[in-house]
Amino acid sequence: MIFLDNASTTQISEEINQLVFETNREYFFNPSALYINSQKVAELIKENIKSVQTSLYAQNFNVVFTSGATESNNMAIRGFINNNKTAEYLFSMGEHPSVYNVAEDLKQKGYNVRYVKLDKNGVVDFEDFKQKVNQNTAFISIMHVSNETGAVNNIEELAKYAKMVNNKVIVHSDGVQAVGKVEVNLQKLNVDLYTISGHKINAPRGIGILLVNKNLSIKPLILGGGQQINLRSGTENTSGILAITKAIEFASQNQQTNAQNVQILRDYVKHNLLSQIQTCKINESSVNSAYILSVSFSNFRGEVLLHLLAEKQILIGTGSACSSKKVDNRTLSNMGNTKEQIQGSIRIGFCAKNTMEEINLVTQTIIEIVKNGYNTKE
Amino acid sequence: MIFLDNASTTQISEEINQLVFETNREYFFNPSALYINSQKVAELIKENIKSVQTSLYAQNFNVVFTSGATESNNMAIRGFINNNKTAEYLFSMGEHPSVYNVAEDLKQKGYNVRYVKLDKNGVVDFEDFKQKVNQNTAFISIMHVSNETGAVNNIEELAKYAKMVNNKVIVHSDGVQAVGKVEVNLQKLNVDLYTISGHKINAPRGIGILLVNKNLSIKPLILGGGQQINLRSGTENTSGILAITKAIEFASQNQQTNAQNVQILRDYVKHNLLSQIQTCKINESSVNSAYILSVSFSNFRGEVLLHLLAEKQILIGTGSACSSKKVDNRTLSNMGNTKEQIQGSIRIGFCAKNTMEEINLVTQTIIEIVKNGYNTKE
Repeated sequence: MIFLDNASTTQISEEINQLVFETNREYFFNPSALYINSQKVAELIKENIKSVQTSLYAQNFNVVFTSGATESNNMAIRGFINNNKTAEYLFSMGEHPSVYNVAEDLKQKGYNVRYVKLDKNGVVDFEDFKQKVNQNTAFISIMHVSNETGAVNNIEELAKYAKMVNNKVIVHSDGVQAVGKVEVNLQKLNVDLYTISGHKINAPRGIGILLVNKNLSIKPLILGGGQQINLRSGTENTSGILAITKAIEFASQNQQTNAQNVQILRDYVKHNLLSQIQTCKINESSVNSAYILSVSFSNFRGEVLLHLLAEKQILIGTGSACSSKKVDNRTLSNMGNTKEQIQGSIRIGFCAKNTMEEINLVTQTIIEIVKNGYNTKE
Repeated sequence: MIFLDNASTTQISEEINQLVFETNREYFFNPSALYINSQKVAELIKENIKSVQTSLYAQNFNVVFTSGATESNNMAIRGFINNNKTAEYLFSMGEHPSVYNVAEDLKQKGYNVRYVKLDKNGVVDFEDFKQKVNQNTAFISIMHVSNETGAVNNIEELAKYAKMVNNKVIVHSDGVQAVGKVEVNLQKLNVDLYTISGHKINAPRGIGILLVNKNLSIKPLILGGGQQINLRSGTENTSGILAITKAIEFASQNQQTNAQNVQILRDYVKHNLLSQIQTCKINESSVNSAYILSVSFSNFRGEVLLHLLAEKQILIGTGSACSSKKVDNRTLSNMGNTKEQIQGSIRIGFCAKNTMEEINLVTQTIIEIVKNGYNTKE
């Protein structure tokens, strides 16, 4: 099997899976209990928090462990919302459903929600952004790297501009597709809140992080026993915490080397598809993640291609799995793709372990299928 | 080590830990993706939902997997709250912080929150309950089994009475300390919402369930990709789902036999403490979980006893770990305990694997320490 749907989820690394197993067995004690075994677990969690801060240059942030990026995104937005319905809340049109649907919910509740357009390359349109940011803008959420195309938003510049206009604005960025893939340095990004997912970086499902600037006062989404300095109640998921911390360490330490290697694979697929198939188009930005390649064929349905490849044990995606059941694709349509191009889109999600042999086979198979049309299917 | 703090958390069973490990490795595919490997995972999750329904006679309930009981309790209460501030929301004074603190939050927001008293045995005072339930009561949350004392509320009768007064009332029960410990039959309980925790029944941290009556319309707490019939977004935690399902199967199948065995252990500790230490009192109800023994000493601090026992590798609790840092204990003070008795309280949380040899040693050690006072400490 060749797994190329890593933007949807990743296989947990053997080492981290083993770490989860051992942590569940040895460090199961409730970190809130009073005996030494529990104090050791609490200490371990503190050390992991420090490691996350070090990996991401996030010493100015509280590390809040959540159940995943969806919860982190919900918490980031709703933890900040008060009853002020004149303040403006600004979101990009390319946000993941766990941001976009919270924005839509706020809109329905009467909040002043505004959206900023994407340009044809899939990044936030800076001119539109400038028009929509004003002194009334209270909150901005713009993803770091697009889960659909890998386009990298210049969060540093966007946040800097917004804070120049209104120094009280709170900026959140969904970094799910960024951590380990592009440089993530919280000292530079100018954000107040940052979302991380475990299962996108070879840690297990059920664990995520919301980085919360220490100067920011945010309401918890989930109340209870007051764990995690009252920001997220519930007995801490120790094995999940150790797993995501280790995954962030791995991903950050090897980020540059891995990205260079994966870039070669991505370039290979891209250039071969472009040269062999006239009707295909790459959805990308000048600054793009090496890990995602979004291709639109105007004469071949993505879903059909997905299934034909799956028969050959090659697994790819068609846009975000989370919204795979919907016909529409907000990001691709905002980028100006036709309906045919959207239906003809696939998303190849690389991982650092992919080899050129795999990628060559996949490339040739895609070309063969698309060129021969349905005849390829026995 | 003798672990007797199982009401706080439990060690994951070896079999379930192995299941988590293998699921993480083999079934990591995103259940929302379109290829066959993902469809198999989605199918597996459906089978697990059916198993939970079978184990708990919950065919009329949607099984919503959450990150744990704290999230389930937050979701149960807040998913139901609308802007109706005249309707009454009724909670018992013995609720876990993940219910109680949500209630307090609603109260601060201007909702009409009322509390029903506990009687001296630690169960909801039925007379007080009758006085507080009326046609205006919209929502009731009463835990099934107390996490502090193991007292079992007669949820069936309480819910029946409330629904007789107002057939539109929604009843939620926190069943964290009930599943696997006492009979849990959702066909009988008359509740609309029921909370389950994974890590209290030998599954890992980070997974819980909210059972939602299929006739009930509830708002999600966490929005996003629309997973779990839109009730709880976020990529499903497959290994957690398989783990909690297996834990519920085990716990339910062996519930009666295990409870009988644990009851013998509990009775042994109880009778020996009562006969040997004049100043001790058992906090319990006539119908009580076999798994929790709450003891109040009026002349010995619980925390000191905990630490002296921990030195001998015997781990117990002092009331709920979640609130262990607070001096107060809502449940024990509502039951009429003095400040000395509350400070002198310990909670022994049994598990089905405890042996009489262990329990005998623990009992003799407690008696020795309390009788000899601080001198026991070398």
